[in-house]
Amino acid sequence: MVNDTLMPSIGPSDSAALSAFAERLADAAAEITLRHFRADMTVDNKEKTGFDPVTIADRGAEDAIRALIEATYPDHGIEGEERPPKPAEGPFTWILDPIDGTRSFICGVPTWGTLIALLYEGRPVIGVIDQPYLKERYVGSPLGTTLNGNAIRTRACTGLSDAVMSTVDPDLFQDGERAVFDTLKTRSKLIRYSLDCYAYAILSAGHFDLILETGMKPYDIMALVPVIRGAGGMVTDWSGNEPGPDGRLVALGDPGMAAEVLPLLTV
Amino acid sequence: MVNDTLMPSIGPSDSAALSAFAERLADAAAEITLRHFRADMTVDNKEKTGFDPVTIADRGAEDAIRALIEATYPDHGIEGEERPPKPAEGPFTWILDPIDGTRSFICGVPTWGTLIALLYEGRPVIGVIDQPYLKERYVGSPLGTTLNGNAIRTRACTGLSDAVMSTVDPDLFQDGERAVFDTLKTRSKLIRYSLDCYAYAILSAGHFDLILETGMKPYDIMALVPVIRGAGGMVTDWSGNEPGPDGRLVALGDPGMAAEVLPLLTV
Repeated sequence: MVNDTLMPSIGPSDSAALSAFAERLADAAAEITLRHFRADMTVDNKEKTGFDPVTIADRGAEDAIRALIEATYPDHGIEGEERPPKPAEGPFTWILDPIDGTRSFICGVPTWGTLIALLYEGRPVIGVIDQPYLKERYVGSPLGTTLNGNAIRTRACTGLSDAVMSTVDPDLFQDGERAVFDTLKTRSKLIRYSLDCYAYAILSAGHFDLILETGMKPYDIMALVPVIRGAGGMVTDWSGNEPGPDGRLVALGDPGMAAEVLPLLTV
Repeated sequence: MVNDTLMPSIGPSDSAALSAFAERLADAAAEITLRHFRADMTVDNKEKTGFDPVTIADRGAEDAIRALIEATYPDHGIEGEERPPKPAEGPFTWILDPIDGTRSFICGVPTWGTLIALLYEGRPVIGVIDQPYLKERYVGSPLGTTLNGNAIRTRACTGLSDAVMSTVDPDLFQDGERAVFDTLKTRSKLIRYSLDCYAYAILSAGHFDLILETGMKPYDIMALVPVIRGAGGMVTDWSGNEPGPDGRLVALGDPGMAAEVLPLLTV
């Protein structure tokens, strides 16, 4: 079980300064993304198999964020979906996904978000989930998690039968994963779909209890970790370890549910 | 095929006055619903089988709307989910659902909406989809459809393979319905779930192309019809007729898609 990885990394003053800087990055991204949301857009197909749109907004926002980081912290590494990585010359690397939930973005649904993570020696210590259309910004750090500056906490949940669950798309679960998902869906109280990163924001604010996903990329995961953990929640891979390259993620608002949920996640 | 039913009913001045009044009703509902959204709530189980929550907010908002109608138009009929119907003494009846999407409401997702419909001789002529948390109000009438006062239109769509589709929950499709849904899902470009009435708002504003649902109640349907038709879209049952008691609904942003879609809706 992992749940204390935010703590031994950076001190309170670094946390405050770097969180504030991460919010500046989110401001810069919002200026560009909002200009294109619900407007006509140029949509590329990133992969020839399947539908994975990348918008002008995504690229423009990533460039804006990169410019700010390079000007302020030239020794920090940068990794984003849209441009080649910039190696770090120290312990800090930023992981950027200016528009997580591009499908929602291109069809006018305001549950996409800007994801910004700061890694210290490879581990996420600061995370931002920003939804500028809703004017909701979730920031997680060793100091805790805030929504628009106010501290938030996940909620207690007595068990699966009382849990509100979410996943982005049931069809993403393949083979044995689908049976795991179906079990959790059947045992939980209700389920919401298609919410992208916004589901994790809602969990951190104490309205969802359980999120199960597969096929997540590192860009999708890193920013979520400090937000969820800083709010008192748990996020791991399906084995209870640090999320890894298999892309499987489980998030719990109440870590006490792990004893019931983790044994069900056997593929 | 039906598509002109808004027109022969009420004249332009009645349309304007009654639309403005419907917006006052939405204001009154919003004052109450927003007080309870993302706050602690008392949730009843309306039906002992299954989960169908009704909140204090739902009841309070319906009472507020009813009081305004009774004070202003005492001869109008009123039907809502929460209270006994009030028979009309003339051609007008209001159909109310202060919180459509109670599941989303109770888990903090801002895609629920307040639905207000005005029927003239049994047919919906004015409809409001109000999402007060997002500050988005969609009003349809014989004068057209507006979003926050600005005219909106559905968009053209060349066919299913280019269509953004939505439905609230794939598990609601039973027996032969599920095969119909799976066909449409497979042939469409992408699908979004769990959006409740907000999906119809997004379709009316030109971002979605196709919505397929089953199990809809009259309260869920009536307000949607003027919004969609006023924006240039089509909404019928699965046979292309007026939506009826079987609760099956199809909405198209581009009525030209009907020739491709309706033949697929055979159960």
